[in-house]
Amino acid sequence: MRNVKLIIEYEGTQYAGWQIQPNAVGIQQVLQNAIAEITGEQGLNLIGSGRTDAGVHALGQTANFTTNTSIPAADLVHAVNTNLPDDVAVVHAEDVAGDFHARYSAKSKTYRYSILNQRVPSPIHRRWWHLVRKPLDLEAVRTAAPHFIGWHDFAAFQSKPIGARSAREISMLVIESAAPEIAIYVAANGFLYNMVRAIAGTLIEVGLGKRTPESILELIASGDRSAAGPTAPAQGLCLMEVEY
Amino acid sequence: MRNVKLIIEYEGTQYAGWQIQPNAVGIQQVLQNAIAEITGEQGLNLIGSGRTDAGVHALGQTANFTTNTSIPAADLVHAVNTNLPDDVAVVHAEDVAGDFHARYSAKSKTYRYSILNQRVPSPIHRRWWHLVRKPLDLEAVRTAAPHFIGWHDFAAFQSKPIGARSAREISMLVIESAAPEIAIYVAANGFLYNMVRAIAGTLIEVGLGKRTPESILELIASGDRSAAGPTAPAQGLCLMEVEY
Repeated sequence: MRNVKLIIEYEGTQYAGWQIQPNAVGIQQVLQNAIAEITGEQGLNLIGSGRTDAGVHALGQTANFTTNTSIPAADLVHAVNTNLPDDVAVVHAEDVAGDFHARYSAKSKTYRYSILNQRVPSPIHRRWWHLVRKPLDLEAVRTAAPHFIGWHDFAAFQSKPIGARSAREISMLVIESAAPEIAIYVAANGFLYNMVRAIAGTLIEVGLGKRTPESILELIASGDRSAAGPTAPAQGLCLMEVEY
Repeated sequence: MRNVKLIIEYEGTQYAGWQIQPNAVGIQQVLQNAIAEITGEQGLNLIGSGRTDAGVHALGQTANFTTNTSIPAADLVHAVNTNLPDDVAVVHAEDVAGDFHARYSAKSKTYRYSILNQRVPSPIHRRWWHLVRKPLDLEAVRTAAPHFIGWHDFAAFQSKPIGARSAREISMLVIESAAPEIAIYVAANGFLYNMVRAIAGTLIEVGLGKRTPESILELIASGDRSAAGPTAPAQGLCLMEVEY
């Protein structure tokens, strides 16, 4: 039995998210159908590195599945893509060890949250960027960013509490900007539900002068979701890479 | 009577082009309706710098209209945008002299043709980039580019002959690349029908090794459309700027 790892790019705009849903189209299902058509195998189980929510994108979602097909990995990429809609694509496939598991083997993930900071809406940015019309103080955002780095209990940045297991390690939080575009890159060993979007919403409030950069540590310590900024909209979020 | 100049951004994917069409939606019409709703004036005539074809985009389309409204130009931007669909936006408005004419006053236009040079399709690029799956020889393309610059009869690069008036001056043709993306920037004092797309199609053939960089001058001299490359697809083309 082969174990095949895929790297997947998608525009989440039209989907209910990664996961298979009872009454809505999930990206996982779209991929499973496309792969099964090529391998001809029943009961295919595509394991994703994790869920992405409705409207969230990916440039580097990772998944794996076991198969007996003899089609080489490089050919699988192109064969599967012929069965996919144009907003989902497999960009890479390779054979991996039998114990590779897209979710449990993941050591770290990197997300990008994209902000367009200008007064006027932008047709070309609209599906991938969150428009913030008021000017953001980029220096304040840059000053706040490092306060998130390290091991912390990020309960203040999760939408659905899951109890005591809310400690995560953020290894990187970088702000890249070429006006009017601002991109927040965050890498961590795991993310709580809506964590990146809550961090983005909070950093936007820092940029708007609604909270100080220094208030971040106190906010993290509070563990109080209502004390943090709002969950920024889904379309700005993109899963960039899963590291193993 | 005021004369107001607009700069407009749009994603052309869903439109039959700039021009008002009998049985299809043109971007000009969408804008005219949105402006008329704000000014309350009948018979508004929005003059564009020129047509863009179905599926072609713009970051800097320019247009003007005369009006008696007292709404300041800066406020017009935001008022009109509230009446526009999210794939069209006014990004700038200003009062200009009465003799300004978006089409006749234009001195030069700059277009970009965007190529994605990789084997796999890309969901995030698909609306704005033309996917070329075979590897392009970028050095050959860069060598060919300067041969287009200057005053030439570009009859070999127009889809619909308009007689003897096919001489144009290309002032710039630059290839910018950050693999796998290749962007062709072309500026000229005017463009024939499908001229940029025919140039792009020809440069792609140079990159594929189907013709030499040196053959471009002979090709231009031939005036023979059938001797040049194919018209590259609309979605790669974007009107970047109109210079006055």
